[in-house]
Amino acid sequence: MHALSTDLYQLTMAAGYFHREMTARSATCEMFVRRLPEARRYLIAMGIEAVVRYLLELRFDNEDIAYLKTVPSLADAMTPGFVDYLHAFRFTGDIDAVPEGTPLFENEPFVRVRAPLIEAQAVETHLLSLINHQSMIASKAARIVVAAEGATAVEFGTRRTHPDAAIDAARAAYAVGFAATSNVEAGRRHGIPVTGTAAHMWTMAHASEEEAFAGYAETFPNATILLIDTYDTDRGARRAAHAARERLKGVRIDSGDLDQSSRSVRAILDEMGRTETRIVVSGDLNEHSIAALRKAKAPIDTFGIGTELVASVDAPALGGVYKLVALDDGAEHRDIAKFSMGKATFPGAHQIHRVSRGDMAVRDVLSLSDEGAPVLERGETSAPLLVPFMRDGKRTRPADDLAAIRARAKQGLASLPAILRDLGPKSHDTRFRVEPSPALEALMERVRREVAA
Amino acid sequence: MHALSTDLYQLTMAAGYFHREMTARSATCEMFVRRLPEARRYLIAMGIEAVVRYLLELRFDNEDIAYLKTVPSLADAMTPGFVDYLHAFRFTGDIDAVPEGTPLFENEPFVRVRAPLIEAQAVETHLLSLINHQSMIASKAARIVVAAEGATAVEFGTRRTHPDAAIDAARAAYAVGFAATSNVEAGRRHGIPVTGTAAHMWTMAHASEEEAFAGYAETFPNATILLIDTYDTDRGARRAAHAARERLKGVRIDSGDLDQSSRSVRAILDEMGRTETRIVVSGDLNEHSIAALRKAKAPIDTFGIGTELVASVDAPALGGVYKLVALDDGAEHRDIAKFSMGKATFPGAHQIHRVSRGDMAVRDVLSLSDEGAPVLERGETSAPLLVPFMRDGKRTRPADDLAAIRARAKQGLASLPAILRDLGPKSHDTRFRVEPSPALEALMERVRREVAA
Repeated sequence: MHALSTDLYQLTMAAGYFHREMTARSATCEMFVRRLPEARRYLIAMGIEAVVRYLLELRFDNEDIAYLKTVPSLADAMTPGFVDYLHAFRFTGDIDAVPEGTPLFENEPFVRVRAPLIEAQAVETHLLSLINHQSMIASKAARIVVAAEGATAVEFGTRRTHPDAAIDAARAAYAVGFAATSNVEAGRRHGIPVTGTAAHMWTMAHASEEEAFAGYAETFPNATILLIDTYDTDRGARRAAHAARERLKGVRIDSGDLDQSSRSVRAILDEMGRTETRIVVSGDLNEHSIAALRKAKAPIDTFGIGTELVASVDAPALGGVYKLVALDDGAEHRDIAKFSMGKATFPGAHQIHRVSRGDMAVRDVLSLSDEGAPVLERGETSAPLLVPFMRDGKRTRPADDLAAIRARAKQGLASLPAILRDLGPKSHDTRFRVEPSPALEALMERVRREVAA
Repeated sequence: MHALSTDLYQLTMAAGYFHREMTARSATCEMFVRRLPEARRYLIAMGIEAVVRYLLELRFDNEDIAYLKTVPSLADAMTPGFVDYLHAFRFTGDIDAVPEGTPLFENEPFVRVRAPLIEAQAVETHLLSLINHQSMIASKAARIVVAAEGATAVEFGTRRTHPDAAIDAARAAYAVGFAATSNVEAGRRHGIPVTGTAAHMWTMAHASEEEAFAGYAETFPNATILLIDTYDTDRGARRAAHAARERLKGVRIDSGDLDQSSRSVRAILDEMGRTETRIVVSGDLNEHSIAALRKAKAPIDTFGIGTELVASVDAPALGGVYKLVALDDGAEHRDIAKFSMGKATFPGAHQIHRVSRGDMAVRDVLSLSDEGAPVLERGETSAPLLVPFMRDGKRTRPADDLAAIRARAKQGLASLPAILRDLGPKSHDTRFRVEPSPALEALMERVRREVAA
């Protein structure tokens, strides 16, 4: 069902390789981000599980092929031979990737694809869509989780993004440490806890706030979280405590000065004996406003985050690219790079070695994939980040469950130098050290000379 | 298939209304944007066709209901009676909306829903997702179309957003005047022309640029658009003209100084007799860079726009909200408004009357839906913008085809005061006049007094 969810040129080039009899060649491509967005000191890899499912299921059915024959610029190339090729198409390549939840930096491959040239080309766009979108959300979510440290973050953004993007956003947020989502389908599909409170409309649909609150508590005796800011927040807090009594699990405040109102509401609730009632806040929150509320010790238990998360407002697109890095044609192996200004790429297939001291990451070494571990200093350890996900088109690594990804993200975030977890603008100091291995540097030099020749 | 693609609280409140026996009430809700994003002087309505399809198809199937029984905060409310209600659920309400492609302003309803309270509540989130996302893209696309005026804009953004969001983005862009998309599925689903060129990988997969270009021209004799900036753009232009000759429909430049390189490439192509060959440019383009290239009279025929369009980078979320504005309970009719700071809403069901002089829009009057046309000055005409789309759950207006929406958007954009089509930051002068009718003002005053009482 996803075969046509791609750029046309992937299919025209696939046809071109077919007609030029370049099908025997094996290509290695890597997906990476050239430069981190200005507002990001690290990225969190996310989306590879969706990519593997896409690659396992990718087929061109009769309807797809019938449509492709009608596309003017492709029609000439839709010969019986190429149609047969599309009918029989399966992804038969190898995938190595960084498991979801891992922090990554610029020029580091999220995914490496080694496959027959046509296949490696054909899957580019959909793979980029999935990883760019999910990693964008995960990277934003991680900042919010760090800012909320000790309090709970829940995902409330469905209405502010495409309905299907919202489901992936909920998963990405949960995967890096959000506690729950309001998106029911995300809950069903991915086993994420779903949560919610009452809304303004509930209150406004009743003749009075008192009646609205009492009615809610009666219907949901075990899940009474009331929205108290429809008219006056303090009065709302009193009415909620009065109407729901010991059933009052929580109250939500969605407007105004959240620092001031959370303190005032906490005092009212405590005074009325509702010391266990939790305070939820929402309304255009991001990592900066959350950090400020935490720093001020506002008595807030749960932050509901919507727009800022699902649109990643301060970095609303991740510019991941997918580049050919090597080509094999039976006898000949070519390592490939681009040296255009601002768009240079590293030749060859790569591995990332994360070097740590104790629990703390200290630098990454970007090496060639067939090199061993880097030379370490005393006290350092290293681990390769890219691991096999598929071989010959088959999954070789079981899908991670979300609990495993959450644990990996938690550990990965904790391992970053403290300055990287800071939320301010970037500077020279906030850059994680990523160095090419000596063998990669030598290869770069050799390819640069060849291209110049 | 979309029933659970919503916020949990819509379903808990639906259950609440059911158990509180509030099902007989009829609610009127409106979706609107409170404030235009800083970088927008107008919005373009988009998404209502998807909303109508969603409302026509909305069902809760056995699997949906089985899952809902497992959600802790909803479980208490999933009584046999409510389960029966969900099984039988159909949207039975009325929809009035502004047809797609229409320019809109702040506080103006995109959609009005009048339905039994549960239904009006249950559809909120999905309706907002669809209209917020599609209108965000359409509003950005309109600025790009205005900037490109006289040249062609094509949509290339799939890789920089969620794969399904990309399909809707391609439709929204085409609906306001883009000429084509690279997204094949969007082409199939919506009948949009699909387009593409060669890619860097095509060139790099061949032993030389000459071989890559000659091979492409041979395989696609009627659709040869070559990407010429892999190594050196001028040299690439010469090689393309030489290899493809009269087959060379176009060349694409994806990097560097597009003003300078397009001139240089145009001169080379002309000198080699390829005066008909079109120049396509791409690479992080937006309305500002396009306007600058147009102003400089760079010889560019087609602009390919990706990231900036699909992520609407300068306004990456549209904050459309959905508010209860009236409630009927058989005997009693209540007009409803919120007066919270910064979140005030207009009570009652509304109509927008667009007032024009000749072909130019001069102001909008936001009136009550049961008022007639506004009082006009001499030489003015007016037309209501909200029209019926559904009655009693059935479609009453045939779906617009994209050609009709394109014509409407074109006419709508042309009718805006020139200062609104300008791309700079907003000021007092750039605000389109939207005035409440005297009857709406009187109602606001009355409801304000009631709430204060």
